[in-house]
Amino acid sequence: MDLYGEHGFEQTTVAEIAERAGLTERTFFRYFVDKREVLFSGASSLEQFLVGIVAGAPEQDRPIEAVATAIASVADFFQERREFTLRRQSVIGTNTELQERELIKLATLTAAIAEALRRRGVREPSASLAAEAGIAVFKISFERWISGNDESNFSQIVHEHFDELRVVTTGC
Amino acid sequence: MDLYGEHGFEQTTVAEIAERAGLTERTFFRYFVDKREVLFSGASSLEQFLVGIVAGAPEQDRPIEAVATAIASVADFFQERREFTLRRQSVIGTNTELQERELIKLATLTAAIAEALRRRGVREPSASLAAEAGIAVFKISFERWISGNDESNFSQIVHEHFDELRVVTTGC
Repeated sequence: MDLYGEHGFEQTTVAEIAERAGLTERTFFRYFVDKREVLFSGASSLEQFLVGIVAGAPEQDRPIEAVATAIASVADFFQERREFTLRRQSVIGTNTELQERELIKLATLTAAIAEALRRRGVREPSASLAAEAGIAVFKISFERWISGNDESNFSQIVHEHFDELRVVTTGC
Repeated sequence: MDLYGEHGFEQTTVAEIAERAGLTERTFFRYFVDKREVLFSGASSLEQFLVGIVAGAPEQDRPIEAVATAIASVADFFQERREFTLRRQSVIGTNTELQERELIKLATLTAAIAEALRRRGVREPSASLAAEAGIAVFKISFERWISGNDESNFSQIVHEHFDELRVVTTGC
């Protein structure tokens, strides 16, 4: 991560990353399929975290409420790691391949949330729509939070955006 | 496209594509930055088409209505090209890099729709939320349409999914 910031993502080699981390290249490839994955190594724990909250939401919660609770909790997680998140995002922002990888990770998260909703008995297409809507709110809130100042509260932005989504889809 | 179907995307070389199309490799690269782009060459006309419909929607239409009209029109476009769309999708489905490229094209479409809404005077975050919601409905409807039979009507699925999105976000 430091190397990506210092030399840029493209200029950084796997050999350099491995050296900085005190690993051989071979060990590096045991952990990561490529150097892009270094930036997305947290994705599967994030997924477990989200899925856990959706699964554990009160039974009477509507699908979108369970998703909103999960997304707001993720926002708290990022809030606590604001500086790291900003640095990571500035690396991703400079490279199209990293943006593509990020989008596929978000698509995977969306599918995992939809699956968690179906396990709560939510039918299709509601499960997928609620999951997609949740990730959409996350993306837009994330962009606003990251371009805002230190004081802006990510989970509050998430809640405001869920309210706004309701207004957008219903007009009231 | 035929070659991707016959030999698989990975096994097909730019030289083979160029030969089949009666082009030199050099000419190929004048039109496409890489062989992935062949599958996404329609993306910019699709974008112009969507943006045109959003821009031309009746003034009193709410943002989500303008987006729904645009997405339903795109559905008609795909419906008329069902066989080609199915073949293209089966190539994309086998390759992660192509799926990544597709996701970034959808993200570009989303940004273009949001921009078209802002030009209609829609403020943020409503413009981005309506655009994201629209693309989410498109994706989910597309999956259902493509896995259905010949008779399933894509634009009707789109309208049903917009209705369902309203139910999902409001509970009524």
